Amino acid sequence: MSSAIDFYFDFYSPYGYLASLRIDEIAARHDCKVNWKPFMLGATFSITGHQPLTDTPMMADYTLLDLARSARLQAAKFCMPDEFPQAALSCSRAFYVLVDQQPEQAVALAKAIYKAIFGEGKDGTRIELIAELARNLEIDAEALVPAMQTQPIKDRLKAETQAAINRGVFGSPFIFIGDEPFWGNDRLDQLDRWLETGGW
Amino acid sequence: MSSAIDFYFDFYSPYGYLASLRIDEIAARHDCKVNWKPFMLGATFSITGHQPLTDTPMMADYTLLDLARSARLQAAKFCMPDEFPQAALSCSRAFYVLVDQQPEQAVALAKAIYKAIFGEGKDGTRIELIAELARNLEIDAEALVPAMQTQPIKDRLKAETQAAINRGVFGSPFIFIGDEPFWGNDRLDQLDRWLETGGW
Repeated sequence: MSSAIDFYFDFYSPYGYLASLRIDEIAARHDCKVNWKPFMLGATFSITGHQPLTDTPMMADYTLLDLARSARLQAAKFCMPDEFPQAALSCSRAFYVLVDQQPEQAVALAKAIYKAIFGEGKDGTRIELIAELARNLEIDAEALVPAMQTQPIKDRLKAETQAAINRGVFGSPFIFIGDEPFWGNDRLDQLDRWLETGGW
Repeated sequence: MSSAIDFYFDFYSPYGYLASLRIDEIAARHDCKVNWKPFMLGATFSITGHQPLTDTPMMADYTLLDLARSARLQAAKFCMPDEFPQAALSCSRAFYVLVDQQPEQAVALAKAIYKAIFGEGKDGTRIELIAELARNLEIDAEALVPAMQTQPIKDRLKAETQAAINRGVFGSPFIFIGDEPFWGNDRLDQLDRWLETGGW
C-alpha cells in the first residue's frame, strides 16, 4: 500500500478532532505514515456556499448530538468550546513553524491543541495556550511564538490552504491514500479497510 | 428496543437508495419494523441553504466517487440516472396511495422504484415506469395511476413532508429510533449498534 497518507484538517473542526484521535493508529497498523496537514477550512465555504454545520439551520442541533454520540462511540473526551467556530490561524501557523525541522513535535503539538479545544473546551485562538502546550512538550515556546507572526509562516499557511483546495479538499477531516479521497470522520473505517485491502 | 423505526427518504436520493437496500435486514435482526416515509427533500433546501451535493461546487466529483465506492462496498448495483436531480413527486404519491391499505406492496413498490432509478438509471418521473413496476408486483396500476393525481394524495405528500421537517429531518436517508435521529447511509452501522445495545 501507500507508504503515507495525507490528513487534512482544520483545528476548529470537531470531526477533525475525532479523526485525529484515530488516524495515527489506523495508519500504523498498515505500516503507513501520516502527513498532518492543517488548513483553513473557512476558505472553502465561499466556494461551496456552505457554512459550519453548527451555524446551518436544522442541522445545528443534529450535529451537536451526532458529535457527542460519535465521541462516546470511540470513547473520546469531547466538548464544544464556548466560542465556536473560530479561525484557527495561530494553531495552524504554530504547526507550520515546526513541521519541517521538528515534525514529530509538530504533530504532538497538533494533538495537544486539538485535545485542549475539543477535549477541554479551551480557547484555541489564545497564543498563551499554544505556548503553554508547546512548553509541556519541551518545544521552545519563546522561539515558536514570534515565528508564528512572520510573513513566511503566514504565507506558508495560505499556500498550504490553496494547495488543499486545488487538490479538491472541501471539508475536515479529508484524507488521501494516493489519489483516493475520503471525507469525514465517518469514513475512517472505509479508510482502514482500503489500507488493508488495497481498495475495492 | 423500539418496535419500529422511521425511515425518511427522497426517491431521488442516491444515499437513500443505498440505505433502502439494507434497512429492512438491519431492523429485522432486531425484531424491529420499518416505517418507510418518503418525503420531498427539496423542501428542506430553502431552509438549510444547501442544494444537492452533485450540484455543489467541489463536492460534486467527490460525491459521485463516494457513492460508487460505497455501493461497491455493500455490493449494490449502482448508477446515476441521466437526469439528476429530479423532483420525485410521482414516486412518492404512488407510495402514499398504497401505504394505508396495502403497506407491504407500498414498500415493495418503493424498493422497485429505487432499483429502477439507481440500479438501472431509469427515469423515475415517468408515470409509465411506475405503472409497469406496479404491475410487476401485481398492484392494480389502472387504479394506482389516477389515484396519484387526486388532491387528497397530493395533500398527503405535502403533509408528510411538513411533518418530517417539523421533526427535524433535513437529509435523506434520515432515520429515527424513537427520538434518536440518524442522518445518512453512513450511519447505518451506528443504527445497527444502537438497536443491538439500546444506545451508548
